[in-house]
Amino acid sequence: MSDRIRVIQYGLGPIGCAVARDVTTRKGLELVGGVDIDPTKTGRDVGEVIGLGHNLGFAVDKELATVLARTEAEVALHTTNSYFDQFKDQVTEILEAGLDIVSTAEELCFPWLAHPTEAAEVDALAKRLDRTILGTGVNPGFLMDTLPLSLTAICQQVERIDVLRIINASTRRGPFQAKIGSGMDVDAFKAKMAAGRMGHVGLPESMGMVFDTLGRKLSRYEAAVEPVVADRLVKTDHCEVQPGQVRGLKQVARAYAGEDEFMTLTFIAALDEKDEGDTIKIAGKPDLEVKLAGTNGDIATVAIAVNAVRRVKQAASGLVTMRDLPIVTVLQ
Amino acid sequence: MSDRIRVIQYGLGPIGCAVARDVTTRKGLELVGGVDIDPTKTGRDVGEVIGLGHNLGFAVDKELATVLARTEAEVALHTTNSYFDQFKDQVTEILEAGLDIVSTAEELCFPWLAHPTEAAEVDALAKRLDRTILGTGVNPGFLMDTLPLSLTAICQQVERIDVLRIINASTRRGPFQAKIGSGMDVDAFKAKMAAGRMGHVGLPESMGMVFDTLGRKLSRYEAAVEPVVADRLVKTDHCEVQPGQVRGLKQVARAYAGEDEFMTLTFIAALDEKDEGDTIKIAGKPDLEVKLAGTNGDIATVAIAVNAVRRVKQAASGLVTMRDLPIVTVLQ
Repeated sequence: MSDRIRVIQYGLGPIGCAVARDVTTRKGLELVGGVDIDPTKTGRDVGEVIGLGHNLGFAVDKELATVLARTEAEVALHTTNSYFDQFKDQVTEILEAGLDIVSTAEELCFPWLAHPTEAAEVDALAKRLDRTILGTGVNPGFLMDTLPLSLTAICQQVERIDVLRIINASTRRGPFQAKIGSGMDVDAFKAKMAAGRMGHVGLPESMGMVFDTLGRKLSRYEAAVEPVVADRLVKTDHCEVQPGQVRGLKQVARAYAGEDEFMTLTFIAALDEKDEGDTIKIAGKPDLEVKLAGTNGDIATVAIAVNAVRRVKQAASGLVTMRDLPIVTVLQ
Repeated sequence: MSDRIRVIQYGLGPIGCAVARDVTTRKGLELVGGVDIDPTKTGRDVGEVIGLGHNLGFAVDKELATVLARTEAEVALHTTNSYFDQFKDQVTEILEAGLDIVSTAEELCFPWLAHPTEAAEVDALAKRLDRTILGTGVNPGFLMDTLPLSLTAICQQVERIDVLRIINASTRRGPFQAKIGSGMDVDAFKAKMAAGRMGHVGLPESMGMVFDTLGRKLSRYEAAVEPVVADRLVKTDHCEVQPGQVRGLKQVARAYAGEDEFMTLTFIAALDEKDEGDTIKIAGKPDLEVKLAGTNGDIATVAIAVNAVRRVKQAASGLVTMRDLPIVTVLQ
């Protein structure tokens, strides 16, 4: 057997397929299985399902146990959904099967603030089984938490952190354009928002990681989502937005230490949005301003999940977060 | 005894004094001693020497042993000079005295490329004594190595890395302005350059850390320093530069993987220099461009040295580098 790390892709949606394709390009990793419940995928060769252009010689299995009856593996790349109530049984099953996990589930990135009970349960389970589980991604997982924290290394004092992420959704996938409300009427957007899970997931996780790492108690957390409305016709390959309809969303989260606002996270994703890029401002000694261009969410999330595999293999057991690991770097 | 980490400042030049002052502002650290060989400093209260505005109740000692005869300590912040041949005896003495070390010595940041023998000796000594030693700073230590490496986390592939640091020396200390050649004639600058140690120290260390971490073999390394010449009169609080004289330096290092140039580091420090700031470009998938403003070298180096103290206390023994540690963050 080679010394490459044997990886199972758990979840073969668009991100999972991209993760699996990326795994096949890495010298140190070997893709040995794929799991998905979608009956249009199960039984087909994993190489075909992920769009590799050639077969890999093994099919998508509905059950993890079926993969593990056929082959050995060390790490599962878990890419199914965002929410603890939906993924908790999955990660439990994977840990109990003896695998380490790198997951793109947003709520896993730093669950100690928003989901402390579930976090403690998963942590205890992983420790008991001597396995490691990490949630990561570009956001949460990097741009609004790990990277700002890393930048505080060169600060003697930090008084305030503000992160702004602007995504021009015109260049992104159709499902992403739909997810941010493109083409909806404003009333429908607000109704969907009021009903529940509209908007980007992960801002409380980023806030939690930053506050906890800097030793500050988060006294208050506020978040709001509002529609970004088109003032002219916007067309993409996937949709058409009339003036007055929604072309995306703006989400702002604020967190306080004591009475003072210490951190804001602003996430704007909209069609036809100018000035795409990320800005991290740290007020302190010194004041820092860092601007990033090129941090495409899909490419970056796939990358960081795959790049984290080696670190997770090396890490102590339990539920770990990006701030607990030595720096994750590209793994070629 | 409190649970604060007890720190000795070893070296009380401008950076050492700034480090010691910063230590006194951190809740988790306690400054318990100061060492310097300068007879104008020894015997005077450390608080007075570092410019704290009040006494600390203990004097600068010439010898580390004298401090340790008076009090216990856990970590030495070492800020004396850049070069192995000058600091090796010092760090040996400190390790043998039982302390962990955070040093701002440039050649310690990643000595495995340029000084492999010395690196192995210091590493072996630290391991034998079960102590940890780290070299850090803003550059080397962060901007041209740790931070670019951290950014590759969101890359699926990296084909090339270029870092540019531009410092407007007009706003910096007089000794810094002199060190970069401000006010020299071009011939004198070139003679001094040819004679030896003109220019910024640390580019090979940054290259070494990046290549080693990304698993690439560095096949060739080239570096050049050239004067930046004034085309008009430049005045600062510390010097005056006539047209045709040197107002600073430009240093470029190139490193190759196989036949291909993989990384360039460009360091420009000159009086009256426009566009101060740092730019990191990563070519790959995706292409990233990151621009930083506010990374004042003195403030940032002091910060990262002090912020690293806790990580070094927690780290495995031996000579560690920034890429071996969990992310260093501000320690308030």
